[in-house]
Amino acid sequence: MKFFLQEKLMQEYDTQHDYDGISGERLATRLGELSKIGLTDGKGSNRPGYSKGEKQAKELVSSWMRDAGLKVHEDGAGNVFGRLAGKNDELPAIICGSHVDSVPNGGHFDGPLGVLSALEVVEAWKQTGYQPEKPYEVVIFSDEEGARFNGGFNGSEGLLGIGDLSEKVKLKDVAGKSFSEVLDEVGLSVEGYSNASRNLDDIEMFVEVHIEQGKRLEKENLPCGIVTGIAGPCWLEFTFGGDAGHAGNTPMNDRKDALVAASDFIMEVNKLPSQVSDSAVATVGKLNVEPNGVNVIPGKVTLYVDIRDIHKETRDDLVDRVLKLSGVISEKHDVTINHEEKMRVTPIPIEEEVQQKLEHAFQEKGIRPFKLPSGAGHDAMIVGAKLPVAMIFTQSKDGISHNPDEWSDLDDCVQTVHGLKHFLERMQG
Amino acid sequence: MKFFLQEKLMQEYDTQHDYDGISGERLATRLGELSKIGLTDGKGSNRPGYSKGEKQAKELVSSWMRDAGLKVHEDGAGNVFGRLAGKNDELPAIICGSHVDSVPNGGHFDGPLGVLSALEVVEAWKQTGYQPEKPYEVVIFSDEEGARFNGGFNGSEGLLGIGDLSEKVKLKDVAGKSFSEVLDEVGLSVEGYSNASRNLDDIEMFVEVHIEQGKRLEKENLPCGIVTGIAGPCWLEFTFGGDAGHAGNTPMNDRKDALVAASDFIMEVNKLPSQVSDSAVATVGKLNVEPNGVNVIPGKVTLYVDIRDIHKETRDDLVDRVLKLSGVISEKHDVTINHEEKMRVTPIPIEEEVQQKLEHAFQEKGIRPFKLPSGAGHDAMIVGAKLPVAMIFTQSKDGISHNPDEWSDLDDCVQTVHGLKHFLERMQG
Repeated sequence: MKFFLQEKLMQEYDTQHDYDGISGERLATRLGELSKIGLTDGKGSNRPGYSKGEKQAKELVSSWMRDAGLKVHEDGAGNVFGRLAGKNDELPAIICGSHVDSVPNGGHFDGPLGVLSALEVVEAWKQTGYQPEKPYEVVIFSDEEGARFNGGFNGSEGLLGIGDLSEKVKLKDVAGKSFSEVLDEVGLSVEGYSNASRNLDDIEMFVEVHIEQGKRLEKENLPCGIVTGIAGPCWLEFTFGGDAGHAGNTPMNDRKDALVAASDFIMEVNKLPSQVSDSAVATVGKLNVEPNGVNVIPGKVTLYVDIRDIHKETRDDLVDRVLKLSGVISEKHDVTINHEEKMRVTPIPIEEEVQQKLEHAFQEKGIRPFKLPSGAGHDAMIVGAKLPVAMIFTQSKDGISHNPDEWSDLDDCVQTVHGLKHFLERMQG
Repeated sequence: MKFFLQEKLMQEYDTQHDYDGISGERLATRLGELSKIGLTDGKGSNRPGYSKGEKQAKELVSSWMRDAGLKVHEDGAGNVFGRLAGKNDELPAIICGSHVDSVPNGGHFDGPLGVLSALEVVEAWKQTGYQPEKPYEVVIFSDEEGARFNGGFNGSEGLLGIGDLSEKVKLKDVAGKSFSEVLDEVGLSVEGYSNASRNLDDIEMFVEVHIEQGKRLEKENLPCGIVTGIAGPCWLEFTFGGDAGHAGNTPMNDRKDALVAASDFIMEVNKLPSQVSDSAVATVGKLNVEPNGVNVIPGKVTLYVDIRDIHKETRDDLVDRVLKLSGVISEKHDVTINHEEKMRVTPIPIEEEVQQKLEHAFQEKGIRPFKLPSGAGHDAMIVGAKLPVAMIFTQSKDGISHNPDEWSDLDDCVQTVHGLKHFLERMQG
């Protein structure tokens, strides 16, 4: 069975949104061409960060950028910029894009859709003879997914000059290659990486289109939505210590069952997010029992709580509530509970004014402006630490992502480009 | 570091209970001699069922039986009987003992204490010139632990002629040896095994002394206790099916989290035993989450509930309540829950009259008669399906068992023998 992404995208596309210079077929063709690079047996995408596949994908997009009249430049972190001069080219640029790397057997929309949407706006402007007031750059960030070094965001961190390079050079990929060796393989270097950071005064804002990777837009039957903020995750590891014992010979009232205590904790954690905000979430996704024998009372349970919200205050409030809860559960069940903070990333709320501009742009294009938080991290989360950011989500079928079944209908993608284009035009003055 | 079980047992022994022909030193010496067979690096016991080690241990005990004047006989299942003639030797015999096999790195009391206590009674009778009215047999059952074939009770099942021999011959041990090959190695055969069953009219009762493997007697500060019944376990496997999803991009109110549902279930299961009886227990000891990723909502949870009680009615009532609960939880959390019954062994309650006789025997020996259920299975559970049984538990330090740290103080063992001896004498008329 052959895999034709372009054909599949075009199948149900009726061209009703092909206007103002935007072409569904061009977008489908380009998504299709990119999908052929690193195509897996499972018809998924395999283009790890800093791989030959990612490099090839960047080169292909660069050729399209040049065809569209953009001036192409690659920085020391492997990020590619295609610049369209503004009428007033001294103004700070608006940059727009995403990434083209993927997880090992990922989909064909996570990343490429953001890059190609940014480029499609240029194509449309070219066709209608529009030149923006401000310079506009289509950007491809390197190694967003982090499949290579179990880290991610190396491209956007390189641009901002953040991230600890002394830590990065210690990284090894699954094949045992160092960060330096991996960069060498694709014509980059640690020295070049360390000089990648750009004067941020030259950039006004970063705009990113991305698939939702959730089901909210599908439920609302909307092509795209306005992201209100990017949730920063905090990961807490909890270890519950009870008394292992024979399941038959220990009366119910003489137990310190680590799993019963953990269960109570999980039930209560599940109730906490709504106490701090509508967008907060808390999840126990990973849990291990020891000794994990059918007839042995669990003596130890290790579990992880993933806590997210788009505002630092509510996210940290939720973290505090989870920690406080662990104390209550420890006392109630007479078990020990220790915790360790494994990660705490600052959430990036998106400015009200930016959200309003997106809202008006959507309304003018006949798209009901629906707002939703981003629970997953994106390049915009990294860039947002130093620059204003905007994000648009495109509907994902069944919320499936990081999987060959990842899908967005072409019409939803095209409507997203209309919303993006209109927003970018509104940002000119 | 050398390991001297006998010396360790004698260290805090003050001989105050050495009377009526019972000798703590003899008991300690014999426990010590047995401990040397299959002694592990971890100072534990490694004598799997039907191994050379078990055979050697049976031969050693047989030699002591002969020295004590017993007539020794081994049946086709490898069970050893040492018979003391009764004054009225035509009467059905009272048989008393346990096993000498162990789990791979087990302790030195689980099994041997029961066999040597039964033999110590004979030594005491010999010394005081007492002959029982009824014949008395010290028994060593083969392969109680089941470490060899992951099954257990092959000796006691052979005696009763129960257990499915056509299934047993399909068994393979960890080394890939069949039941038949394993029997051959210790001079037994499948044919012999199939003819091991004895006319049960010749046996009045089976009495077993065993370590408690729990902490109740230690808490009561008692040397030994009266077993009220042997709980039959029922094992249920439950599979919870929810929707896996991204922990960041799925709002709290749009989740079907299999682990949250399982946690609710575990909390409620923990409350059910007290609704059916004081002796009932229910334990979730084994639980696995899928995909078990920190940032993925659990899509599937598999867990096992171990349900026990000493009465069939209450045990089965508890099983029904757990099953009913799974329906309630499934509806409440909108997840699928499937179950499979993996095991259901009939509990063996011990007759009131037998318990009363034990009670009087204990009282007359100055031991407060404390009653407790046995949560673990024993040879008495198998024999109890066809014959009256009695069981006495000896205090276990910290309830530790199946572990080199398993321990019972010699004074507690000796007091157990007094209680056993007095009970056996009360059974004579």
